[in-house]
Amino acid sequence: MLALTLQHGKLTLRDDYPRPQPRPGEALLRMRYAGICGTDLALIAGYKGGFTGVPGHEYVAEVVEAPGNEEWVGRRVVGEINTFCGECDHCRRGLITHCQNRRVLGILGWDGAFAEYFLSPIDLLHPVPDNVPDEVAVFVEPLAAAYAALRDLPADTGDRVIIVGDGRLGQLIAQVFHREGYQPLLVGHHGHKLAVAEQLGINTALKPPADQEFDVAIDVTGNAQALQQIFGLLRPRGVLILKTTHADRSQLNLSPVVVDELRIIGSRCGPFPQAIQALSQGIIDPHPLITARFPLKQAIEAFALARQRQSLKVLIYGDVGQ
Amino acid sequence: MLALTLQHGKLTLRDDYPRPQPRPGEALLRMRYAGICGTDLALIAGYKGGFTGVPGHEYVAEVVEAPGNEEWVGRRVVGEINTFCGECDHCRRGLITHCQNRRVLGILGWDGAFAEYFLSPIDLLHPVPDNVPDEVAVFVEPLAAAYAALRDLPADTGDRVIIVGDGRLGQLIAQVFHREGYQPLLVGHHGHKLAVAEQLGINTALKPPADQEFDVAIDVTGNAQALQQIFGLLRPRGVLILKTTHADRSQLNLSPVVVDELRIIGSRCGPFPQAIQALSQGIIDPHPLITARFPLKQAIEAFALARQRQSLKVLIYGDVGQ
Repeated sequence: MLALTLQHGKLTLRDDYPRPQPRPGEALLRMRYAGICGTDLALIAGYKGGFTGVPGHEYVAEVVEAPGNEEWVGRRVVGEINTFCGECDHCRRGLITHCQNRRVLGILGWDGAFAEYFLSPIDLLHPVPDNVPDEVAVFVEPLAAAYAALRDLPADTGDRVIIVGDGRLGQLIAQVFHREGYQPLLVGHHGHKLAVAEQLGINTALKPPADQEFDVAIDVTGNAQALQQIFGLLRPRGVLILKTTHADRSQLNLSPVVVDELRIIGSRCGPFPQAIQALSQGIIDPHPLITARFPLKQAIEAFALARQRQSLKVLIYGDVGQ
Repeated sequence: MLALTLQHGKLTLRDDYPRPQPRPGEALLRMRYAGICGTDLALIAGYKGGFTGVPGHEYVAEVVEAPGNEEWVGRRVVGEINTFCGECDHCRRGLITHCQNRRVLGILGWDGAFAEYFLSPIDLLHPVPDNVPDEVAVFVEPLAAAYAALRDLPADTGDRVIIVGDGRLGQLIAQVFHREGYQPLLVGHHGHKLAVAEQLGINTALKPPADQEFDVAIDVTGNAQALQQIFGLLRPRGVLILKTTHADRSQLNLSPVVVDELRIIGSRCGPFPQAIQALSQGIIDPHPLITARFPLKQAIEAFALARQRQSLKVLIYGDVGQ
């Protein structure tokens, strides 16, 4: 079958990749749409020691086979990306997305969605409502990550929110906070990206205001210099939500965290049901974030475009996802 | 009067320093005991651009004059170290220890306690119970900072606590958690310091256990390398309390904070009443932490000893604090 593979930081499109075989409890999925994420680009750059296999963890797909769970066959699904064993210390504490034996779709030990077919445990799948088209459903995974930023806010935090980073995830987070009744300020370096948010009624700026303090800052830059600056934007005991991972160590001084008694909260995967509902009800509209769509056979070109700084979400589609 | 002064990172003992004059609302204090803190050493090393004036912010003193508040004269007191204006944005939000116009005793714009006499706003003073001797009362400020670590823990955190750093503050924090019913593990590089904690029944180790996860880690090292290691000791969604400030930027990679969804909480000053009560009731006994006591006229020697890695708390006493 056709699959995009990653090895030693190099992407290769192969037409002879073996089609996987589902075991009981697993589903064989036919990819309809898959999205390119910042983590995919980071993996190519060497994050986590560099993944070997098929990347891709944002997807909507059709269930083709599901041994022992035949009722799932034919369903259109999205899927969570961390397997869990249910038996390790983390799982027993309810931290199943942090399973000590986990594989992570397209990231760690598990071939991902940039292929004609791939596998998923049935337990991780969510059916997609009929009124959510493929190119919208493919945003469930990153939108869930955006909702995680809201979920992870301590209860006593105020409502003055700044989001730093105008890329894919920053845009979704801005939409989430905006639709939840906050008036977030989205800050980024790209006028045309900020314009996308502005058209949805979100306040934007090319740099943070000099004379204003925020209760909450959300970092979606992956940039240590930006992070150091963000410390200075927060009120004492303000909250910084960290959403982006970094491949390398960076120069940082955490003294402001102590002096201003800031709270930094790492935030990763989020609630799929909330994201599915928001897309189904039209609360969040990801259409303006789609930069381009490519068929799987042009996946290399899709990645080349996704790497461009002006790009937002680049989508890849399979034969059934057109 | 006699005073220890700091300028351009250099300590000087002067006998001609002008005795300050209290205004209404202020108290003139005669120093009985003052403690040397890691922050004092950091100020000498250039932290915060280097303070110019009399350092010293841990003290017990006697009120000598208190214009308009004569009932305070003769009282033995300890004092909080951040002035507040009551009118700025932070004060109006209840964040008075973060007052935007604050002076900080012996640290920022306000001469501190390593002198025969110094000033404090009456509002910041707390009377010391008669059963608390001077050399114990001088621990109220750092002990309050230790209680802040407890106060700043989110409610849903577990009880597996590791404290990294066996110095003055780490020891007090270990005592606080120990007496609150936790079984903290105190980790440090100095066998004789760890022995002090062990004699109080606290578990200690020269390095963190390789096969154990913690719900809470408290960093009292001020060392980026230790901090990076601490990330790996925490369970997912574990809490790191940051207690120490750093003069410089350091190499840090915050990816584990995102991947493991850690929470980092900066923690500075704490509740004086709780610390006074704990010392008065004998819940905390700081005596084993006292390395040495010097009269004010030997303050330079006191600082030389405090800088030694084997030292815990070095105290300086005034004429009335003998």
